[in-house]
Amino acid sequence: MKVLGIIVEYNPFHNGHLYHLKNAISLVKPDFVVAVMSGNFVQRGEPAIIDKFARAEMALRAGVDAIFEIPSIYAFQDASGFATGAVGLLNSMNVVDDLVFGSESNDIESISEIASVIVEEPEEFKKRLKEHLKKGLSFPNARRFAISGMLEEKSDNMRYSNNILGIEYIVALQKLRSRIKPHTIKRIGSDYNDERMSEIPSATAIRKAIFQGSGIRGLPDFSFEILRREFEEGRGPVFPEDLFDFLRKKVLILEREGLEGIYGFNEGIAERFFISACKSANLKEFLESVKTKRFTFTRIKRRMIYAIFDVDRELVLRSNDHGPQYLRLLGFRHGSREVLRAISDRSSIPVISNMSGFKNALKSKGIDVALAQDQMKYDLKVSNFYRLYFKSQNCEDDFRKPVVI
Amino acid sequence: MKVLGIIVEYNPFHNGHLYHLKNAISLVKPDFVVAVMSGNFVQRGEPAIIDKFARAEMALRAGVDAIFEIPSIYAFQDASGFATGAVGLLNSMNVVDDLVFGSESNDIESISEIASVIVEEPEEFKKRLKEHLKKGLSFPNARRFAISGMLEEKSDNMRYSNNILGIEYIVALQKLRSRIKPHTIKRIGSDYNDERMSEIPSATAIRKAIFQGSGIRGLPDFSFEILRREFEEGRGPVFPEDLFDFLRKKVLILEREGLEGIYGFNEGIAERFFISACKSANLKEFLESVKTKRFTFTRIKRRMIYAIFDVDRELVLRSNDHGPQYLRLLGFRHGSREVLRAISDRSSIPVISNMSGFKNALKSKGIDVALAQDQMKYDLKVSNFYRLYFKSQNCEDDFRKPVVI
Repeated sequence: MKVLGIIVEYNPFHNGHLYHLKNAISLVKPDFVVAVMSGNFVQRGEPAIIDKFARAEMALRAGVDAIFEIPSIYAFQDASGFATGAVGLLNSMNVVDDLVFGSESNDIESISEIASVIVEEPEEFKKRLKEHLKKGLSFPNARRFAISGMLEEKSDNMRYSNNILGIEYIVALQKLRSRIKPHTIKRIGSDYNDERMSEIPSATAIRKAIFQGSGIRGLPDFSFEILRREFEEGRGPVFPEDLFDFLRKKVLILEREGLEGIYGFNEGIAERFFISACKSANLKEFLESVKTKRFTFTRIKRRMIYAIFDVDRELVLRSNDHGPQYLRLLGFRHGSREVLRAISDRSSIPVISNMSGFKNALKSKGIDVALAQDQMKYDLKVSNFYRLYFKSQNCEDDFRKPVVI
Repeated sequence: MKVLGIIVEYNPFHNGHLYHLKNAISLVKPDFVVAVMSGNFVQRGEPAIIDKFARAEMALRAGVDAIFEIPSIYAFQDASGFATGAVGLLNSMNVVDDLVFGSESNDIESISEIASVIVEEPEEFKKRLKEHLKKGLSFPNARRFAISGMLEEKSDNMRYSNNILGIEYIVALQKLRSRIKPHTIKRIGSDYNDERMSEIPSATAIRKAIFQGSGIRGLPDFSFEILRREFEEGRGPVFPEDLFDFLRKKVLILEREGLEGIYGFNEGIAERFFISACKSANLKEFLESVKTKRFTFTRIKRRMIYAIFDVDRELVLRSNDHGPQYLRLLGFRHGSREVLRAISDRSSIPVISNMSGFKNALKSKGIDVALAQDQMKYDLKVSNFYRLYFKSQNCEDDFRKPVVI
């Protein structure tokens, strides 16, 4: 049995995703495809446009055999934390043979070489890193310059968001001494952040079109239908702008001191958040007010989410050290029971699909019970909060909805 | 110079308030009237319908000479905490001769006698109190029954909200060994909670009429004009219902453990709040879901506000032990400079009217600097948060607005 693993967000699922999935399949010719996907908040520090169950359904319709949720504590961290959670899940299954990810460069050798430097930390790298940190650069930038000093043009890979994610995937694989073999395929269509509509638009362009109520193109029919059904039933769309009202009130109440206690904040960022929350009338004004040269929109948006959910530094550190503690199944296809059974048999962490399953899973050997509970509590909080933005306006039990088949 | 002190909320100022003010003046015939008033959140655990500066203006138009803000940490506590702050402010001025408050019973002797039992704690009272507490009664109820066992029909005074406040005012005066002489006059017009409109409607009835957009009666013209001006300029009306959206999200994120850390919560109340926030679609449903026989709507609403503002147990205890640390002037009348000067000269805590005044005041002898800063920080947070509900949707510096003259 040959199993392909992919790491996705499908926010929402579009033609570019379909292209990537088909190419990945024709590259490694697997018997089964297993995906790990972020839940109701995604890596760029935004709420997903529709619920995770609907996005899981899109994945299954597209040909994925089984889909699991990346615990929230990883899902909206930076590339490194996201990779720790996503790759950690795939690796823990002990059935995945290949990982295929999209990249701008399509250059697996250079990406792997950069990853090796990060993991192995040769003396030259450490020395260069230290020098750049001394100059006052942030850690990610210092690391980038240290590597570009060593690998020269290969380090160009570190300039694009999908390459950066790919590097971190391979770093995570190497750290876990994983047997999963990484491959990359070239991303096609619009750039990640390109807001224009085209045959293969970016997810950003699609979300923007939904926000503006203008025509949406570039989605497979099933994806479009699921999107329409969700909207009709009042489950979304949820936009980053929707969070601003709660955020500014929360920030005002937390004040500088409260913000400083949250993961990702120091005194300076706390001050900028506090001042900007007070004087900005909407999310755009807020982001522009907080932004500095070194503090990009995505970094600000992730910290917005951290502030909303009181993200605890210690939980992030423990999670990044010990990895995810459970495999939450969101959905699977008929005919994929064989791969699910293999995962259940061989995985190093328990597979769960409901709350009583989770409670039983806490008795499994080898898992960190306290960490599993903290990760789950955080997942439930994030999902429940998200659903308060639905028009139906009621919390739903995150486990009330059965696994999508 | 004879000075009358009054304790008010004026939410909004209506004919009943005017009647009370006139009667109080004719009772003690003062040279000046000084008021202390809650800020943007009031004692019953609600946001005020309009901003404190507008309500201060109403007071001045009605004949009050100077008006000060009761720090928020006292303003939405129960009767005892409210009285500690309000009476503490009046007493600290060292110029107030008389306190006149409205009551249902108009029986100052019985009210004072009950207050004396509470302050002096005779053995019989302590014994009875212990017995009732053993039966599982809440402290306020156990106290009420202990007193009714001793003072019999006089204890009927403890059944009405204004009497209860009056008792606590006298308790506070006695504890401070204040030279202020208490008087009471009978409340007229509608009951506190009566929602019907009449010539002298309750503030509740007026707020309800504003909420429903129906006709408002029972306000002096100046009060009506100020109300209209505020609404026209987008400053209010703010309703308790407006807080629900933020509250439920905050409660969901705090979870049971977070709520238990907040003043006024124990495990049981935290659980009820958490469950109810999730399943209720509006404030009414929430209140009804949390309510128990012993846990009244007002007590729930106060705790809602505590949850919103992360009210710290320790700050409440320190504040109740040490009293207010500054006299924040909201407004005064031309011709009242003499009484203001007297207060400035004789008061035991500093009079402040702007932020630089506050910073200077921290150098005053005899004040608890840390407590003053914590009380002020809390006042600013509460006022700023309140103003996010204005249509203009921007924080205003709470000191940007000059004192009303």
